[in-house]
Amino acid sequence: MARNITSRQQDYSQWYLDVIKVAELADYAPVRGCMVIRPTGYSVWEEIQQVFDRAFKETGHVNAYFPVLIPSSFLEKEAEHVEGFSPECAVVTHAGGEELEEPLVVRPTSETVIGHMYSKWIQSWRDLPLLINQWANVMRWEKRPRLFLRTSEFLWQEGHTAHASKEEAIEETERMLEVYRRIMTDYLALPVVPGVKSEGERFPGAEETYTTETMMSDMKALQAGTSHFLGQNFSKAFNIQFQNKKEAMEYAWTTSWGVSTRLIGAVIMTHSDDDGLILPPRIAPTKVALLPISKDETMATGPLLSKARELAGKIESVIGDRTIVVDDQFHMRPGDRFFYHLQKGVPLRLELGEKEFEKGTVRAVRRDTGEKIDLPWDGIETKVHELLETIQEDLLNKARSFREMNTHEVSDFDDFKKTLDKKGGFIKTYFAGTKDDEKAIKEATGATVRCFPLEDKDARGKCFFTGKGDARMAIFAKSY
Amino acid sequence: MARNITSRQQDYSQWYLDVIKVAELADYAPVRGCMVIRPTGYSVWEEIQQVFDRAFKETGHVNAYFPVLIPSSFLEKEAEHVEGFSPECAVVTHAGGEELEEPLVVRPTSETVIGHMYSKWIQSWRDLPLLINQWANVMRWEKRPRLFLRTSEFLWQEGHTAHASKEEAIEETERMLEVYRRIMTDYLALPVVPGVKSEGERFPGAEETYTTETMMSDMKALQAGTSHFLGQNFSKAFNIQFQNKKEAMEYAWTTSWGVSTRLIGAVIMTHSDDDGLILPPRIAPTKVALLPISKDETMATGPLLSKARELAGKIESVIGDRTIVVDDQFHMRPGDRFFYHLQKGVPLRLELGEKEFEKGTVRAVRRDTGEKIDLPWDGIETKVHELLETIQEDLLNKARSFREMNTHEVSDFDDFKKTLDKKGGFIKTYFAGTKDDEKAIKEATGATVRCFPLEDKDARGKCFFTGKGDARMAIFAKSY
Repeated sequence: MARNITSRQQDYSQWYLDVIKVAELADYAPVRGCMVIRPTGYSVWEEIQQVFDRAFKETGHVNAYFPVLIPSSFLEKEAEHVEGFSPECAVVTHAGGEELEEPLVVRPTSETVIGHMYSKWIQSWRDLPLLINQWANVMRWEKRPRLFLRTSEFLWQEGHTAHASKEEAIEETERMLEVYRRIMTDYLALPVVPGVKSEGERFPGAEETYTTETMMSDMKALQAGTSHFLGQNFSKAFNIQFQNKKEAMEYAWTTSWGVSTRLIGAVIMTHSDDDGLILPPRIAPTKVALLPISKDETMATGPLLSKARELAGKIESVIGDRTIVVDDQFHMRPGDRFFYHLQKGVPLRLELGEKEFEKGTVRAVRRDTGEKIDLPWDGIETKVHELLETIQEDLLNKARSFREMNTHEVSDFDDFKKTLDKKGGFIKTYFAGTKDDEKAIKEATGATVRCFPLEDKDARGKCFFTGKGDARMAIFAKSY
Repeated sequence: MARNITSRQQDYSQWYLDVIKVAELADYAPVRGCMVIRPTGYSVWEEIQQVFDRAFKETGHVNAYFPVLIPSSFLEKEAEHVEGFSPECAVVTHAGGEELEEPLVVRPTSETVIGHMYSKWIQSWRDLPLLINQWANVMRWEKRPRLFLRTSEFLWQEGHTAHASKEEAIEETERMLEVYRRIMTDYLALPVVPGVKSEGERFPGAEETYTTETMMSDMKALQAGTSHFLGQNFSKAFNIQFQNKKEAMEYAWTTSWGVSTRLIGAVIMTHSDDDGLILPPRIAPTKVALLPISKDETMATGPLLSKARELAGKIESVIGDRTIVVDDQFHMRPGDRFFYHLQKGVPLRLELGEKEFEKGTVRAVRRDTGEKIDLPWDGIETKVHELLETIQEDLLNKARSFREMNTHEVSDFDDFKKTLDKKGGFIKTYFAGTKDDEKAIKEATGATVRCFPLEDKDARGKCFFTGKGDARMAIFAKSY
């Protein structure tokens, strides 16, 4: 166990903060609830951004930028939206040395201002679908901030699309959910459960909210991304109308969907251990650290270092530019150099000592399992690539097994409470309660409906809480 | 001349706004002074971002993210800085439903909050140099907004570095100026003049501000990017100290440098004509539009379209994915289809009509010159690539000749005023005046010192305004 990290068992919350601190991912900012994303953390965000951005473009979306300040009256145009967001808003009342006539809110999300612009841009069915995404900072004032998970300011992407028909808009909502599921699974190694939100957990102003829920290593749930079918709520509030093929005016159907820097929190809490951060290779900015090591300084800084650089060049040509670091921190002790990369979550460490040098090998050490494997120089680039892919796969499988092992089915409320108390994790059960029932369950147990999983969408049974029949399968859990 | 664009001669300001409007680059937002960057405009920004970001990383910089809100007391810690920026600030006074104890400003620039964080992160000479860049939105309240050039909110990058010695910090300031010069010249086709700012035009808090100045097609100057040597001003204000190799405490030397979405304004006003936008190929998101054209619909949507797609595939493999568009807007008239791409600034249009189809060619039409060239299908990918490179080069040369033609040397204030009045453009002359002299010249003529050009840094002569000897060569101009 690392000397500078609290163990998960001792204090999970403190462990999480310690992991972030020693990996230099983020810091609290001087403004309450805000964070500074440090270079190591930001480079992970850049990796994540790139994967999503490519997928958005491949599905026909384009990026744009809308203003950070929104007239406060805009929020009020959609009744549920203002109720949901105005308590969390930061408000600009003065600018350019004068008091403003109308206060402006720092965007908590951009449905309203984008709705306003769409009403100008959309005239005819030929302008549809309009498929726009924005990468931006947003602000929702937080009383109990937590780095990456809940901060007053965070970075995210928000997709906003407008369509000529309800069916097409629902199709888009589901398509983007699937993009999220695929990337979270294949790149972030998060075995997310795609599903539909209950009435009580829907986005303010949405007709239907889809979500990807995932289990952290303390068995709590985390909502990793959401995709909303907004019906005609925003198009009516902002008058987004178009002339259809029959030359009649119709309101457009809109969607929105987003993922945020919260994903970094999910990655940390899914994969890391008591020694610190573990990153899945596909989103690790540094995938490999290669360390020439010898007590003999001439040897270390001479033949070992130059061989290390040569091998790094070969490996880089397969795994990608700037994804391998040759460690020349010879002023540090070898153990400290190991720890440096280990705590930064680098998936694979390669050691090149005198013994390896003589044999023409390097010693590979997996960050996730600690397993050591000797790799011959010849063909090392392929071997390293394969090892990284194996680590990626193993991390996903491990997280999936953990979730499956900690998912329990129950059939009545007593069992629900007992299971949640004794075992925790995800509780699967049939549920047909109202928003008030959801509230009552939350007050009694702390757990909420995370989603109605899509994979069980046809399963029906008796509601564990109300006893009603024909209830859908739901997952309940305590959550972040 | 385009039907929907005012000519430059008639009204240059209106021409600029019309070009932006018909190319769908940007719109005014519902908040005064703010803009919406539309997909076409944003994709140009993405191209520009990529080029700069790559260059920053190649010169050893890493990205990070600092909070958008800054305690107002931070601004006050550096005397010139607060004087320069506080009149332009937007101020958050309420958040989370309560009045804040201390008002927060929306960042106009991040020297202060980054200085605060650097004082925590920097302890020893081993932590230096610290080379961080941030891509972000910033806000400076504008009473007279102008899309891309002066908006209350804009997007930019701000580099912030800390160094162990003055020499190293100056070297960094100059290195980044050179990165700017190179990219602006080679990619944006802006023949910028690198130089040093006068005392009156320096960044608030800087010891020296370097700039790249460029001439718009109305002969006014535009500051395209700046790089500041901040001395120890911010490290003293924020206590950024480090232990040097001799174990003594020292204040760090810092720099900052930035370019913004203003560059899009510079590109528009340098290259575009009365028909609308012209984009240099290297930053054009769409480099080529390929149009199958025939009155015979079966022909157009059949063999012509499929041949167009085949050729596009070949061309794309050389000039880059998603940089060529096959236009299938058959519901529009050919002239309108031409105009559609022309006004969006697409550098090269390829027409494939029945005549070309029979001959096995396409007709290439250059956006910048209107020149028409027939290209055989065989080897078309190489020819298109070469043509794009030629266009890139010609745009730069044309802009450079224009600047040279409109740069005039003068030796006294009478000549200065006459030349500025009759000819306009850049006025080159020796200058050794004070900040007050700069003010007097500006009040009398509207022109300011744009810079002391680096290429003339050793030239000395008699000051045109004060008559003092040993004055440096300066460029004066009216500016954006």
